Amino acid sequence: MIVLVGFMGAGKSTVGPLLADRLGLSFMDTDQVIEQRAGASIEAIFATAGEPTFRALEREVVAEALAEAPGVVALGGGALEDPGTRAALRGFRVVHLEVGFEEALRRVGGERPMLRSREPRGLFEERAELYRSVATDVVATDGRSPDQVAVAIAAAVESKEPSRAVTVDLAERSYPVHIGQGTAARAPELLPGIKDAESAFVITHPRLVELAAPLIETLRSAGLRVVTTPIPEGEESKSLATAATLYDKLAAGNIRRDDLVIALGGGVVTDLAGFVASTYYRGIGVAHFPTTLLAQVDAAIGGKTGVNLDAGKNLVGTIHQPVGVVCDVALLRTLDEAELRSGLAEVIKYGLIRSPELLDLVADNVDAILARDARVLIELVTRCVAIKAEVVSADEQDIGVRAILNYGHTFAHALEQAAGYHGMRHGEAVSIGMMAAAHVARELGRVDDSVVDRHREVLSSVGLPTSAPLDIEVLEKAWQHDKKYRKGVRFVLLRAIGDAEAGIAVPREALLKMVASMAS
Amino acid sequence: MIVLVGFMGAGKSTVGPLLADRLGLSFMDTDQVIEQRAGASIEAIFATAGEPTFRALEREVVAEALAEAPGVVALGGGALEDPGTRAALRGFRVVHLEVGFEEALRRVGGERPMLRSREPRGLFEERAELYRSVATDVVATDGRSPDQVAVAIAAAVESKEPSRAVTVDLAERSYPVHIGQGTAARAPELLPGIKDAESAFVITHPRLVELAAPLIETLRSAGLRVVTTPIPEGEESKSLATAATLYDKLAAGNIRRDDLVIALGGGVVTDLAGFVASTYYRGIGVAHFPTTLLAQVDAAIGGKTGVNLDAGKNLVGTIHQPVGVVCDVALLRTLDEAELRSGLAEVIKYGLIRSPELLDLVADNVDAILARDARVLIELVTRCVAIKAEVVSADEQDIGVRAILNYGHTFAHALEQAAGYHGMRHGEAVSIGMMAAAHVARELGRVDDSVVDRHREVLSSVGLPTSAPLDIEVLEKAWQHDKKYRKGVRFVLLRAIGDAEAGIAVPREALLKMVASMAS
Repeated sequence: MIVLVGFMGAGKSTVGPLLADRLGLSFMDTDQVIEQRAGASIEAIFATAGEPTFRALEREVVAEALAEAPGVVALGGGALEDPGTRAALRGFRVVHLEVGFEEALRRVGGERPMLRSREPRGLFEERAELYRSVATDVVATDGRSPDQVAVAIAAAVESKEPSRAVTVDLAERSYPVHIGQGTAARAPELLPGIKDAESAFVITHPRLVELAAPLIETLRSAGLRVVTTPIPEGEESKSLATAATLYDKLAAGNIRRDDLVIALGGGVVTDLAGFVASTYYRGIGVAHFPTTLLAQVDAAIGGKTGVNLDAGKNLVGTIHQPVGVVCDVALLRTLDEAELRSGLAEVIKYGLIRSPELLDLVADNVDAILARDARVLIELVTRCVAIKAEVVSADEQDIGVRAILNYGHTFAHALEQAAGYHGMRHGEAVSIGMMAAAHVARELGRVDDSVVDRHREVLSSVGLPTSAPLDIEVLEKAWQHDKKYRKGVRFVLLRAIGDAEAGIAVPREALLKMVASMAS
Repeated sequence: MIVLVGFMGAGKSTVGPLLADRLGLSFMDTDQVIEQRAGASIEAIFATAGEPTFRALEREVVAEALAEAPGVVALGGGALEDPGTRAALRGFRVVHLEVGFEEALRRVGGERPMLRSREPRGLFEERAELYRSVATDVVATDGRSPDQVAVAIAAAVESKEPSRAVTVDLAERSYPVHIGQGTAARAPELLPGIKDAESAFVITHPRLVELAAPLIETLRSAGLRVVTTPIPEGEESKSLATAATLYDKLAAGNIRRDDLVIALGGGVVTDLAGFVASTYYRGIGVAHFPTTLLAQVDAAIGGKTGVNLDAGKNLVGTIHQPVGVVCDVALLRTLDEAELRSGLAEVIKYGLIRSPELLDLVADNVDAILARDARVLIELVTRCVAIKAEVVSADEQDIGVRAILNYGHTFAHALEQAAGYHGMRHGEAVSIGMMAAAHVARELGRVDDSVVDRHREVLSSVGLPTSAPLDIEVLEKAWQHDKKYRKGVRFVLLRAIGDAEAGIAVPREALLKMVASMAS
């Protein structure tokens, strides 16, 4: 599916059919569909029903188009003014046909309803911002024939280095997540905010400095002074002591309010760097370049930062949204297989709570995933990021729906705590936790055996554990110890694959039966 | 000036004239003024011009009423829906005539335009929230005759323990600042959020534990578990090390996400407690009970938190608005006189940048201030808080107008840095800094001698220094060292008493002339 957006006069309706022909795809122009359906011209709908009615109709038509078979879809120039339409485009390939202001006016000759009701230059600039916020690719059209533009789009789409983008929608704190291969080296172009900084303070691990080289190179080429500070690997680095060291190095490195912290690493680096950035100079920008699958689909998205206390993990932290995130799947090449499998537990979690199709994608592509096939990884990461972005946009402060992202984690945290921070990989604990949640949901009659079986199939297909000898007293002790459960433990449970609900109390008998089921 | 607010049917127009009679004041009903001015009934204005037009007219009439001689002013029931009207009420005595929902409906009989266009119960609750946000006093009306209500208001107004309130207006982060005598002991009633917490974690100094006793008592009476943690006095406590100790005590004290930190102390306590609260559990509530004049008019308001690094003051911090602030002038009784004078430098600063009348109030009441006269202190603190609230509401993140609050501070920080953290009281440095800024403004021809003289008169009237042997090279070295001035030092200078402008570059010659003028 390729979606074309752009200002009136960009040539969407002209280029669209040419591009569809070239790629052997169908073409749909949402304005045409709306006119057919309404039995009136766009102009007439605007004049009689008003813009809000038109946008609602348009939102419906766009949603239908996106749900259909892959093809080329051209949207009306103002379609992105509707937040619902923008949200629906998340995770799709959206090509911005760029046209200059003068050229656009020349092409349309002023004959559009919006141009009569609003100041054209202001409208043009507002919309340019909207196109930028959703576009995964930009193709210039000035001085090019429609056929040349179609060729350029086809080339971009067929390029060996595809790149996707998802926006985390949080009003003035919104930011893009770019997913692709080799994308880290394109950072200054993908995250325009980078160029506003004079200096970049890169936090990474010693082992990753080499992996960071192309990024550092491109930052220097963009004119930034780069200070690189490696921190030791391991959860121990997520401490106030390491934060204190980093503050001193930030000050010594002359980093100030409008400079940028760059986090290149897994969740330890993104959590710690995010925390330090959020508290240095009362908050400076941070951009995340996650290097583990787990961090690409989870830790780097959503703004949670944290360091550990002896009393518990992440007890000190902030919510500080990054200025942008680049998930470069090329960075996953050095990841060892156990870490990759561990990250897949979180990927499967997104499928279980929100998207049955994502589970199929994992189960059907295990070999390609383990072989680090870029296209499959990009597809997986994009879908997970789109789900997380949607949930975070709805509940940034984690007081509502964001709780469903903890599916399996109530058990996982108890297992991890019982085992100490080092006893078990997070993904393995989450895998066992999701299986446990499935058994509990079945005991409560919320789901049937097929849902439990689906958990087992998909998790075991990637080599994650699906049974474990659990001890109810060990679990209960961990929950009692956890201050967040002072009013009683609550679980996230499914109603069906892809449909999760948070805040459910579970009787002890159901937990005991789960323990018995988990034993084999 | 007494402003009456309340829902339709609360009896504002009936009680208002009775109250005015009783107090020998004039009475004005803004609805009546609007009807006279428009030559139409409120209902007709709503029907023909619409609510926005009506609210704009109302905002104008309210502003005029507030600018007139003291009297009793009754506002329309929906007046507070307008943010401009709410802002205009800051610092005034606003009495909320409280009426129950059923009683209000009974009294008006459903015959008001708003009741036909909106769901009455929802409207009632929304408005109750608005009245609460600006009211300094609440008087119940159910089951009372208009005369009884007037007596109750007069008693409240004439009470020996007046209390004022200012709202810091920041959308969903808005909060009240209550100023009064003995107000700390009324905390649970003044800050309703307190009752939502199970536990309160009080951070204070050992010497202040006794001063905190009435507050702690009232928190316990309100059903809260109270954990008190004294920290050593002095700027050294504003450190990551003290923060780390507090985190551990918060965890050990079983304080969690929906509990509350209470800061009782000067700027060191409010800055540190605010920082710890903003980062524990990714941010929990904090309420400030400032015990120095400086903290009451400055540090406790506006959400800036911070700890010091070796490399500089406040280099680590956040912006985390409190849930509320109580400025109890009774807490200032233990303050030594030098500290009180130091706080007056900030009070005078507000006058110089925003309010010539505030300077008169200081200069005319020096003896009363130094004698800790409650009425004068309440008036002073309320006016300063109102100015700070207005500036912070306009620029929470300190990227614009908030800079004017640094009047005199560019010099003061350099002096303090040259002297080390302990060499000089902050207020003395600010006093010298504001004198220096006045001389610079005169050198640049922005103001005449009378403005410099007014600085000297008011500052010296409270015993603050107005001359000092300055060394241009010491100043310049401090500014060079300060990373915030990497692009060149910028100053806040006056255009007139009460009118400040930030971001002004100053030629070296003007600074040299200022140094000469400051020598005597």
